[in-house]
Amino acid sequence: MSALIPLPESIPAFLESYLPTGARPFHVTLTYAASIDSRIAAAPGTQTAISHLETKTMTHYIRSQHDAILVGIGTVLADDPGLNCRWKALPSDPTHFIRPVIIDPAFKWQPQGSRLIRTCQENAGLAPYVVIAETHELTQEQQQNIKIITDHGGKVLPLPVDNSGQIAWPTIFTALQETGLESVMVEGGARVINRLLLEPELVASLIVTIGPVYLGAEGVEVSPARSCRLRSVQWWSGTQDSVLAAHLDSYPAQVVPT
Amino acid sequence: MSALIPLPESIPAFLESYLPTGARPFHVTLTYAASIDSRIAAAPGTQTAISHLETKTMTHYIRSQHDAILVGIGTVLADDPGLNCRWKALPSDPTHFIRPVIIDPAFKWQPQGSRLIRTCQENAGLAPYVVIAETHELTQEQQQNIKIITDHGGKVLPLPVDNSGQIAWPTIFTALQETGLESVMVEGGARVINRLLLEPELVASLIVTIGPVYLGAEGVEVSPARSCRLRSVQWWSGTQDSVLAAHLDSYPAQVVPT
Repeated sequence: MSALIPLPESIPAFLESYLPTGARPFHVTLTYAASIDSRIAAAPGTQTAISHLETKTMTHYIRSQHDAILVGIGTVLADDPGLNCRWKALPSDPTHFIRPVIIDPAFKWQPQGSRLIRTCQENAGLAPYVVIAETHELTQEQQQNIKIITDHGGKVLPLPVDNSGQIAWPTIFTALQETGLESVMVEGGARVINRLLLEPELVASLIVTIGPVYLGAEGVEVSPARSCRLRSVQWWSGTQDSVLAAHLDSYPAQVVPT
Repeated sequence: MSALIPLPESIPAFLESYLPTGARPFHVTLTYAASIDSRIAAAPGTQTAISHLETKTMTHYIRSQHDAILVGIGTVLADDPGLNCRWKALPSDPTHFIRPVIIDPAFKWQPQGSRLIRTCQENAGLAPYVVIAETHELTQEQQQNIKIITDHGGKVLPLPVDNSGQIAWPTIFTALQETGLESVMVEGGARVINRLLLEPELVASLIVTIGPVYLGAEGVEVSPARSCRLRSVQWWSGTQDSVLAAHLDSYPAQVVPT
């Protein structure tokens, strides 16, 4: 866990029109960092440094503008992340507490000894809300895990699965909204991002950091099942990375001769 | 074939240290345009509009700085490209004639009726040099195709294949250099780019245009077999696209916890 650096001065203005404003009842921001070849990790289950410390700081700034941060269980198992917000405008400002949300239909997450629970115990973050499939039959261990999560102030949210056996995104976001959350930043992993890139009616904004490295064909890739277009595109570039901010467009990419 | 627009004023200074200067006896620039998910086309064998007209104009400016432009046969069969240079600093300047080079081990290219030969007949470009495997046995039709190519001022270059059945890049570049060419811009396709990204000792510069669209998992992707790092990275962004200019580094990407 590296210390943050000062936020580049031009970042807040660059991101302003992509962050939650209260105009939508529930604002979803999709954000991730990838290599030039659109890999978020060099291999499944591993964590790879891609972004510069200034764009990592930007990520914590974006967290400071959201009520919740959502990741898939794969990311939690691979990275054991803290998912808190370490950015403050001034050192004397209070910590912004962002609510971690884990999408974990089969409830694989082990809270005991996790960095998430540790971060919570150190009063540096909140315990997560864990979204599980309501059809999932809980083991005794999982029932104990629910107790650990709730004892730390988190929740387990059992939600219905659709015909494909997945919990639909509108179901997830409605359930989160009903807990009082008004904005969520989705940080990964690839499976979550690839699904949400195809849900333009649910996603308000997209923020992608591109780090100047190729992670190679064996890496974990972001590429949705179908093409998708963006609008209101802006780019920011820093010491090392380029950042794209955009809105999702609902039309398929045009395939035309050039 | 769309008309070019004025070159953005900041492009020549941005690209200056990545273009041939005569400092190397043979300068190879690797360049391509891809979607955010690192696809150069939405499906194999198709051509997809990715870059804005201003970065397309940049591509012709880059062509104006090279002796040759190299593509794989797959790109020629998919796109029937012109591979000429349409950029001029002033309308009254003479056309820059860039030599097309096609890597075509089995000599699949059909010159008859191709846009390359038409461009040559219209005095808007040069006939290509076609690199074929010297082990390839020529059919009668292929012998006639050699005549068409040479009649238009092009060449067929039969080169030895290595143990893997491919013509090695040093063999290709040495042969091109022996014809008097001093610089080559490699434009595609994905297979050629993926191989050359792993040859840092042969490639002087990399210029990648990223268009703000996702072409999706079925697209033709750029991602080398192994990870690779870049150095001397600079970014430029325009109306729609972001452009990366860099040199290839010879070290594998570092995989470390963040």
